[in-house]
Amino acid sequence: MAVKINENYQLLKSNYIFAEIAHRVDKFQEENPDAQIIKMGIGDVTRPLPKAVVDKFKEAVEEMGNSETFRGYGPEQGYSFLIKEIIEKDYAPLGIELSEDEVFISDGAKCDTGNIQEIFGLDNIVAVTDPVYPVYVESNVMAGRSGPMNEEGRYEGMVYLPCTEENEFVPELPKTHVDLIYLCFPNNPTGMTLTRDELAKWVEYARKNDSIILFDAAYESYITEDDVPHSIYEIEGAWDVAIEFRSFSKNAGFTGTRCAFTVVPKEIMAVDSLGNQQSVNPLWNRRQTTKFNGVSYPVQVAAKAVYSKEGQKEIRESIDYYMKNAEIIRESLKTVGLKVYGGVNSPYIWVKTPNNMDSWEFFDLLLKEANVVGTPGVGFGPSGEGYFRITAFNTLENTKEAMERLSKLEI
Amino acid sequence: MAVKINENYQLLKSNYIFAEIAHRVDKFQEENPDAQIIKMGIGDVTRPLPKAVVDKFKEAVEEMGNSETFRGYGPEQGYSFLIKEIIEKDYAPLGIELSEDEVFISDGAKCDTGNIQEIFGLDNIVAVTDPVYPVYVESNVMAGRSGPMNEEGRYEGMVYLPCTEENEFVPELPKTHVDLIYLCFPNNPTGMTLTRDELAKWVEYARKNDSIILFDAAYESYITEDDVPHSIYEIEGAWDVAIEFRSFSKNAGFTGTRCAFTVVPKEIMAVDSLGNQQSVNPLWNRRQTTKFNGVSYPVQVAAKAVYSKEGQKEIRESIDYYMKNAEIIRESLKTVGLKVYGGVNSPYIWVKTPNNMDSWEFFDLLLKEANVVGTPGVGFGPSGEGYFRITAFNTLENTKEAMERLSKLEI
Repeated sequence: MAVKINENYQLLKSNYIFAEIAHRVDKFQEENPDAQIIKMGIGDVTRPLPKAVVDKFKEAVEEMGNSETFRGYGPEQGYSFLIKEIIEKDYAPLGIELSEDEVFISDGAKCDTGNIQEIFGLDNIVAVTDPVYPVYVESNVMAGRSGPMNEEGRYEGMVYLPCTEENEFVPELPKTHVDLIYLCFPNNPTGMTLTRDELAKWVEYARKNDSIILFDAAYESYITEDDVPHSIYEIEGAWDVAIEFRSFSKNAGFTGTRCAFTVVPKEIMAVDSLGNQQSVNPLWNRRQTTKFNGVSYPVQVAAKAVYSKEGQKEIRESIDYYMKNAEIIRESLKTVGLKVYGGVNSPYIWVKTPNNMDSWEFFDLLLKEANVVGTPGVGFGPSGEGYFRITAFNTLENTKEAMERLSKLEI
Repeated sequence: MAVKINENYQLLKSNYIFAEIAHRVDKFQEENPDAQIIKMGIGDVTRPLPKAVVDKFKEAVEEMGNSETFRGYGPEQGYSFLIKEIIEKDYAPLGIELSEDEVFISDGAKCDTGNIQEIFGLDNIVAVTDPVYPVYVESNVMAGRSGPMNEEGRYEGMVYLPCTEENEFVPELPKTHVDLIYLCFPNNPTGMTLTRDELAKWVEYARKNDSIILFDAAYESYITEDDVPHSIYEIEGAWDVAIEFRSFSKNAGFTGTRCAFTVVPKEIMAVDSLGNQQSVNPLWNRRQTTKFNGVSYPVQVAAKAVYSKEGQKEIRESIDYYMKNAEIIRESLKTVGLKVYGGVNSPYIWVKTPNNMDSWEFFDLLLKEANVVGTPGVGFGPSGEGYFRITAFNTLENTKEAMERLSKLEI
């Protein structure tokens, strides 16, 4: 009678992609000590926190050192001063009305997109796009909503929606019933997005099929085209069928500072086994109040400063900087004759590998011939095979240099 | 075919105790606008972060604002600079050797004690002391390891180990087999603890019964008596049967700053359904890397500063301050003729209500007659009925004033 493990963990296929990348890069560097390797593989920002954010962050730290202004436990859901700012600055301008208890501050969209499944039953059918951010898939596998991985590299029992050149990276509506649908647009890893009309089809599907959409909008600040919605709630009817995840990571450089939020409208309903409708918002509130203790107070103050006039100006400069890189990457790769996607409303460029090379062959080619590192698309799912992700988060100088090198490749 | 909720959430009995306390206090204050209410109910620190911590915290924030020193995603398990400090300063002096991959930094012991159950199967039997920190119980109810709450106020299928005057707040070993055992010593809420010999009995039980002890040591820095272990790993044989949770909340005032850590020795084993032994450490690593993205970099730098010479001096001053309050509370209540427990190795004083009053009657008495607020013991579980928790976290002045008022009560 020993302690039993959660056997669902045994279903997980370790995704060794980033370890394998590191291994190949290290080996190459060892054999070629003079090579100046440029890394364009990681989806992490490089520009510092805005000055407006740093200043307020430090002030809040100072407050914590003073007994008159010290703060102990805060609300698990986050401080009202930050929630109000989110509602007024992110949503009100889009015509979306939120009440304070519909916004939950957290320490990351990874945590929230990973934890959200807990409030739903194990018998729900989960749909994900393919390629996909692995957290959506693996958090459900760990909970027991899948069978083992099949030979195609997909977990049985989950519905995969391919996003490839053939459908212009717009997932088709599921042919069988699904309950929970993870959508991330602008997309990681493809960098592609949905127009208002395309997203509206998903909302319509969810309404007709009593599904709930889990919408990851972590990259919304990179949107440049008018026809691309920043929030799923811009779509009529989305209000009571969609949960939205956002983050300060990619817009304000908070990947190492940690702050995000999730919007759970009170009108979203799910059912218990008696068929009674239950609002999902109190379930998430119960989850968060029981297993989470709020985000660091100084971090929440720092996040609030993102919305200041100066903060907005500074984050816009960083986003523009990255998007300038994205443009350089797009145009350079096109010139070499490669087919490229994304990079218009996203810091990610999704490259079709030439001559039917597989993702890893292309990885090796770029590493060896140009000393440039990207991410093999197959690491994000079987439909990513034959693609390659390059990110726009390096410096302008390195980006130019990398593209200069690629331009000399014979592909 | 609508989305199904996680029905285990419907088993949860909302614990309205803190809401009910707030309600009664507000009502009393309204009816008695001149009453100077002193709150001694909440288990939250009040003294500011040490200066040594604030200084380093601010420096790290500054680093985040500079492109040369900016940090994006850190390791999900925490930075080595903090883990090394924990190993060297918290464990090495106790003769406990840890490797870096056995320590996981997190944003709170609440999260870790709530999430740890995920890596174990649903068919494990869970044991908790009673009274108890509700997170241990509720995280297991939410996951499906219990039936409904019975009339006694206990969830069916879980094993409750009463801690009362009768056993001097030392839980008896379970009479039936249990797999996972949550122990918190020094205890919240009773403030009582286990001697080395008493804890050794639990380690022996776990070894004999192939159980795992989940040991919450959040209050270890309040220990004053030599015979009380600071870490469960001080007990021979504990190494491969116990996971230990610690936090910077109560020792260094991090309740609003958020940093904690969990020790998962690689030797701890559990089994899969084929009976194969599986190390638990990689499972927790998988859980954290999949659903967590590390603690804010400046917060980890701040936590490291807790271990500096100046930091240690300052946190010791705060702990001594609280413990002086605890002594005043203990002695004052004894003088009035009350039976008191705890407060020697803990900032919590656990009071036996006089004349068989129930917890809420005593609450009302103190509120009305002395304008002092504490926490009814029954809020922590049925065995807490007839007890009352007072915390030592208020100011010295308020603590003295509160005790002065209590001394005039006729109990």
